[in-house]
Amino acid sequence: MSGSMPAALVDQIEAVADAGMPEVPHDRSPLAQRRLARRATSFETSPWDEIVALRDRHPDMISFGGGAPAREAVPVARLQAAAAAAWAEMLDAYDYGELAGYAPLRELIAARMARQGMGVDPDDLIVTNGSQQGIDLVAKLMLDPGDTVVIETPAYIGALQTFAAYEATYLPVPVDDQGLRVDVLERELATLPRPPKLIYTVPTFHNPTGVTLPRDRREALLALARHYGILVVEDDPYGELRYDGAPEPPLRALDPDVVYLGTFSKTLAPALRVGWLAAPRRLAHLLAFAKESVDVHNERLMTRVVYHAADGFLDHHLVGARDLYRGRRDTLLAALSTHLPPGTTWTHPEGGFFVWVELADGVAACDLLPRAAAAGVLYLPGAWFSSHADRRDRCGLRLSFSTLDEVAIREGVRRLGEAVRDHVV
Amino acid sequence: MSGSMPAALVDQIEAVADAGMPEVPHDRSPLAQRRLARRATSFETSPWDEIVALRDRHPDMISFGGGAPAREAVPVARLQAAAAAAWAEMLDAYDYGELAGYAPLRELIAARMARQGMGVDPDDLIVTNGSQQGIDLVAKLMLDPGDTVVIETPAYIGALQTFAAYEATYLPVPVDDQGLRVDVLERELATLPRPPKLIYTVPTFHNPTGVTLPRDRREALLALARHYGILVVEDDPYGELRYDGAPEPPLRALDPDVVYLGTFSKTLAPALRVGWLAAPRRLAHLLAFAKESVDVHNERLMTRVVYHAADGFLDHHLVGARDLYRGRRDTLLAALSTHLPPGTTWTHPEGGFFVWVELADGVAACDLLPRAAAAGVLYLPGAWFSSHADRRDRCGLRLSFSTLDEVAIREGVRRLGEAVRDHVV
Repeated sequence: MSGSMPAALVDQIEAVADAGMPEVPHDRSPLAQRRLARRATSFETSPWDEIVALRDRHPDMISFGGGAPAREAVPVARLQAAAAAAWAEMLDAYDYGELAGYAPLRELIAARMARQGMGVDPDDLIVTNGSQQGIDLVAKLMLDPGDTVVIETPAYIGALQTFAAYEATYLPVPVDDQGLRVDVLERELATLPRPPKLIYTVPTFHNPTGVTLPRDRREALLALARHYGILVVEDDPYGELRYDGAPEPPLRALDPDVVYLGTFSKTLAPALRVGWLAAPRRLAHLLAFAKESVDVHNERLMTRVVYHAADGFLDHHLVGARDLYRGRRDTLLAALSTHLPPGTTWTHPEGGFFVWVELADGVAACDLLPRAAAAGVLYLPGAWFSSHADRRDRCGLRLSFSTLDEVAIREGVRRLGEAVRDHVV
Repeated sequence: MSGSMPAALVDQIEAVADAGMPEVPHDRSPLAQRRLARRATSFETSPWDEIVALRDRHPDMISFGGGAPAREAVPVARLQAAAAAAWAEMLDAYDYGELAGYAPLRELIAARMARQGMGVDPDDLIVTNGSQQGIDLVAKLMLDPGDTVVIETPAYIGALQTFAAYEATYLPVPVDDQGLRVDVLERELATLPRPPKLIYTVPTFHNPTGVTLPRDRREALLALARHYGILVVEDDPYGELRYDGAPEPPLRALDPDVVYLGTFSKTLAPALRVGWLAAPRRLAHLLAFAKESVDVHNERLMTRVVYHAADGFLDHHLVGARDLYRGRRDTLLAALSTHLPPGTTWTHPEGGFFVWVELADGVAACDLLPRAAAAGVLYLPGAWFSSHADRRDRCGLRLSFSTLDEVAIREGVRRLGEAVRDHVV
């Protein structure tokens, strides 16, 4: 299990793993005797289930836990109109097809990427079942068991879930207020006998900390990746949700060898499950057939719905969404100043959905969640964003401000402050 | 590569594999130096690409190649109405959620399975992105590299693509006019030091041969699986498309430990990408989290569309679809009698989409495709349905009768007969 599990229930999982999947004796209960793959231990639990189970602890729970867009920022009427248009024109494409995804949608995505400095041929784009599938496909193409993946500490939970299923070894690199510590990565790489296969990073409005990697670190990171021949996977779900400050170029804009993952989950709605990946031609070719082996292709209606919804609309929609989220972020930051005890620190993100809070007594924060839930507030504990080996290093709290109105944000932080004071004393 | 590749281009793939993914030297072209996973060789090509490339060989190509339902049997108006209903009621579910799939759809599926003798709790069903994803998830849960999978020879191409990506070793077992040779499997199992992990089978209207496993072989197969502790994966895309004869019980109806894969791809439309799997409780739990690691969950609209389309409609729809396909099958069988030379044999399926043809000179059939394409007729060559090790054993032709009208079927078989005569002489 060395360094490959995302969730807080690692101990429980390891107990199951130790209990083992015994070799088959003949004629016993078929289920008991069944030998699962080694990777099956990573499917024993999900952090999301754990947070759902805590919801009942308070009659009026305020949850900073999710990573979804605001309900108010889901353009329901637009999506419904787009669906009507898509289904009305869908006369001829009910068969298998469009492995890489609906061509007009790929053209729309390429045009949006071009405006951010990323020149990409629509033929090098693959529409995926959310950007999560992009992570999975890249892992599938690149990782043999034991191969090393550079991850941020803390890192996106879903990516840790995916890489665990490929039995990856992690090289965790800390994140500070300016994102990935590229200097630390450089030192670590110099000591390794064999370079990692992948660097997985959310450089812009990082999940879970909200921080953004500045230009000089971006260039240093790419130079390192080139030097060691490591594939950089840039996951960019929040890049279009900047509320202030000047944009940094995506890594993909600085180096066309970067694999770029995008999604409409944060700009339209997660339920649609439409994301994409952009990859160098040869990798895109392999990734497409990897996708074919997994699910043949995306369903063909929703890709048309997203095209019709986004075309001529998304920019305008995002102006309003940014205003909404900016207000919520500001409310959260102000409430933290008001209610959290001295010595607490937090990030000041210029975009995305997340603020990362660290308590003065970092270790105590690891165990705060049950008390916070009893007080009526939920968040995602920092340990869930780390691989097993170092999961007590960064016991922060991820607070998402995207889905709560300002009254709820203030009341939630008030409860959090109370729970912290009760807990630390 | 022992026995793990589905396609006809195995030699080309192996050349690529032999050329190798070299260990990383520093500071070379990043793409050239990149080391892919071992499984990446299985993503080099797709048989579907090969058949598409042959389409241009004739101005009026008649293709028996696909596995899709008839255009006339896709209930477009019903789907459009279902989509309108689904989008209209979709006020509250744009967030992440429904990992196992929309509950009313799972209840509808469970009710349909119950009518076929399969008692299943909707909580043990997972809606998948087509049944292909069901195969992938089971492989992901069960297979370490080198683990053995029992496959039919010939076997469904898509399953071979999937298992290849898990670096499976195959135990190929021949299929005759009554499906899997369970007697051969029994002898093979007795010689193995370690039992296979999975038996993958399409027991009803088999792809590619169209044959159906009789009751006695079903029971013998399940007894063997229980004895050796092998998980049986029953893929049943065509089970509801029976045109005559008495139904056989699904394997899952005889043994609740069977993993059952179903789909709406053949009964509604493939483009929707909605299938399902039913598994014993503990496996269903693990498979759900395996799915979460891959793509979080299915998109939530299409599952509602399929529910509204199928509810109160699908049975009636299938009556008409069966009539259509029965006529096409009969036309194909009659045309084969008229146009194929003496010594040719073919199967007489009672349902599904496929007839399997074997020429008197079996080896010659392996090389017939280019000549047939030049004559204006396409099919899928038998070698594509076999793993590498034994791919010249069954050089049959898979003819799909689902998408062609009767005029095209007759003309296509006439061309095929001509090509065979020219080729064999």
